[in-house]
Amino acid sequence: METYDSETSYLRQLEARSVLPDGFQCAAREIRFSPSERRTQEPLRMNLSLIVLDKETPDFGAVFTRNKFPGAPVLIGRERLQRPTVRGVLVNNKISNVCTRNGYEDARGLLGRLGELLGTTEESFFIASTGIIGWELPVREMGESLPDLVSGLEPSSVLPVARAIMTTDAFPKVRRAAVGRGSIVGIAKGAGMIEPNMATLLCFLCTDLGVQRERLREDLAWCVERSLNRISIDGDQSTSDTALLLSSGRRGPADPAEFREGLLAVLAGLAFDIVRNGEGIGHVLRVEVGQARNESTALGVARAIANSPLVKTAIFGNDPNVGRIISAVGDYLGNAGEAVDNRRVTVRMGGEEIFSGGCFRLDAEKEERLSAYLRGRALDTKRIPWPQHDKTVDIEVTLDGSSPSVEVIGSDLSYDYVKENADYRS
Amino acid sequence: METYDSETSYLRQLEARSVLPDGFQCAAREIRFSPSERRTQEPLRMNLSLIVLDKETPDFGAVFTRNKFPGAPVLIGRERLQRPTVRGVLVNNKISNVCTRNGYEDARGLLGRLGELLGTTEESFFIASTGIIGWELPVREMGESLPDLVSGLEPSSVLPVARAIMTTDAFPKVRRAAVGRGSIVGIAKGAGMIEPNMATLLCFLCTDLGVQRERLREDLAWCVERSLNRISIDGDQSTSDTALLLSSGRRGPADPAEFREGLLAVLAGLAFDIVRNGEGIGHVLRVEVGQARNESTALGVARAIANSPLVKTAIFGNDPNVGRIISAVGDYLGNAGEAVDNRRVTVRMGGEEIFSGGCFRLDAEKEERLSAYLRGRALDTKRIPWPQHDKTVDIEVTLDGSSPSVEVIGSDLSYDYVKENADYRS
Repeated sequence: METYDSETSYLRQLEARSVLPDGFQCAAREIRFSPSERRTQEPLRMNLSLIVLDKETPDFGAVFTRNKFPGAPVLIGRERLQRPTVRGVLVNNKISNVCTRNGYEDARGLLGRLGELLGTTEESFFIASTGIIGWELPVREMGESLPDLVSGLEPSSVLPVARAIMTTDAFPKVRRAAVGRGSIVGIAKGAGMIEPNMATLLCFLCTDLGVQRERLREDLAWCVERSLNRISIDGDQSTSDTALLLSSGRRGPADPAEFREGLLAVLAGLAFDIVRNGEGIGHVLRVEVGQARNESTALGVARAIANSPLVKTAIFGNDPNVGRIISAVGDYLGNAGEAVDNRRVTVRMGGEEIFSGGCFRLDAEKEERLSAYLRGRALDTKRIPWPQHDKTVDIEVTLDGSSPSVEVIGSDLSYDYVKENADYRS
Repeated sequence: METYDSETSYLRQLEARSVLPDGFQCAAREIRFSPSERRTQEPLRMNLSLIVLDKETPDFGAVFTRNKFPGAPVLIGRERLQRPTVRGVLVNNKISNVCTRNGYEDARGLLGRLGELLGTTEESFFIASTGIIGWELPVREMGESLPDLVSGLEPSSVLPVARAIMTTDAFPKVRRAAVGRGSIVGIAKGAGMIEPNMATLLCFLCTDLGVQRERLREDLAWCVERSLNRISIDGDQSTSDTALLLSSGRRGPADPAEFREGLLAVLAGLAFDIVRNGEGIGHVLRVEVGQARNESTALGVARAIANSPLVKTAIFGNDPNVGRIISAVGDYLGNAGEAVDNRRVTVRMGGEEIFSGGCFRLDAEKEERLSAYLRGRALDTKRIPWPQHDKTVDIEVTLDGSSPSVEVIGSDLSYDYVKENADYRS
């Protein structure tokens, strides 16, 4: 895969990936505002972003959080899925517009203003918001900046938007796939509050390949399930998680299998980038579980390991405390009321067998090898603005059944995760 | 409730609580050993403890973890529940004896040696082990210390055992209830790896009240469900969780309702002590959820809040980021596929309404009051060897149904939790 040795080398890569597919334009602007919910000495900063198609498209789809307190953007987005065509999406960071008194009306008002500026109606736009839950959008300041945002639209690079949608992200995330005569370009933001079932807070995908709406929506759901829904940082599914795919169709139709493969590659790449870039992440974990009684059990076990605070803190400390992995597996299966024949279970870390035949397989030499393995896969938890490396801590579990393997990408739990999340709003 | 201003004042209280009920003796000893699984410069320390009845009793019960990779002590304990009578329990910390090659035989061998020393058989004893998962017990060193342990048995105080069973606990935990002419005395250890469904790693309860086996087991299960199973620190249920109740019956029968009430008080007190004493805990959370569609939903929502890393880190930072509470509720209900009418949901923190009628109720003054509230309930995360205070961060949620309220006690997530658990084995 890809590694970089500086922000410059990463950005060079990103610039190449960021070329917008035909038929799209985008822009980003910063605004300042003072929230009503907190006294602040200095105004806060918010980025507004806009991605628009040159003309309305019927070929679009979106997947949203299953959280039962969804933000106004998610409520509006679900309505937009019924529309014959759409034109684009307005995005803001800093405030997620969830359950505020006029959040729904505020968001529609902004889209109405945007529609006027672009010669259409509010119903042609999605809106996506990420940030603090419970605060009100600064609609006046946002509305006033829209003309400038629209006049800044340009058809070259999506990188300014990939950067503008960041909140606590350490670096912008862009992935690209070339398919047939066109391309698929995706950007994402997501750091903490990331979990299976719409794993990223926000993900926007643009393609100039022609894929009809129904097929496009099937492909999006299928690929999201196998990418964004297979990562986990803190086990929380946010109120705002959204993945949106827009097709301009300008480069004509694509081979269906190649399109799906390209879309999955873009989404899987973004999913991996999201974990690598998690708040204060010290190691990326790759948990593979196979031979379960069924795929749902395999996924449950993989997520239980990836979400266990005890597993995560041990790995942060480069401590191969592998007993905690077995404990997490047993905890999940016990709570799920599922039987397991322990003698048929095998667990490996970094390729070393640590459990088989009902027993741990540990000795002092293996412990030292495993500790060295963990140290060799550590990331600097400081905010380094490019992906440091692509090494993962590999945990492989086979159970006593015959299901195919599933893979979940997760992270350790570091001091810096706590710091980042204790201070997020300051 | 109770607060203390020094270790001395806490220990004075504990000594009064620790007087053993009639018919019991106990002892504790430290041993040293070198594990085969890790090269260590200095031998490690382990405490062995013993609680025995003067004579065999038919009136005993135990509740064990539901983890599917239980330790040998749990496997043996489940067998013991079928025995007509038992005599006591042998306890060790440092190594939990889970899934090792000869763990089951090792444990039974130790109990056999103990039985010889006390003129009975191995089947008269429970064994309980806590500590590192996956390592082997140092059976030779443990066996050699048994004669000294038995000769040290004394009928006065359980405090030495309450202290000896500790691992990363900051202080020993003892609770007592006077019932009729007798008493119930309980001790517990438990710090990290604590979760609903056998929340403490180890809990031992002794009573000189006469309660017949069947009734005693019913009472134990009922009280554990409402105490140890209602706390959560890191959402992990360990491989070794055990609560054991032994009755000598020496003070004659108790009023059934009074006995159950006393047992619940002891267990609820220990449960609260366990959370207050959690590894690196900065705040204790009390999450009350009522008016759910049923009690199981209420419990699920309460645990989702208490286990959310984002809620926990915000509270650690004294940041009233109340949006994360709503997000955790919505995440749980969404994953459970349960409908909810958001307009009928109310959420309070420290008595302040933060969400009602489908909207957040926030302003700058309330934010400042909530932040001051959190600061006022903070604990020093340093290892202070007594409970600093009994203040909790109160989060109250009412949903849109009619179930009675349930309460879960949890904790925040601090730097020190991560540090403690990254370094646990060093």
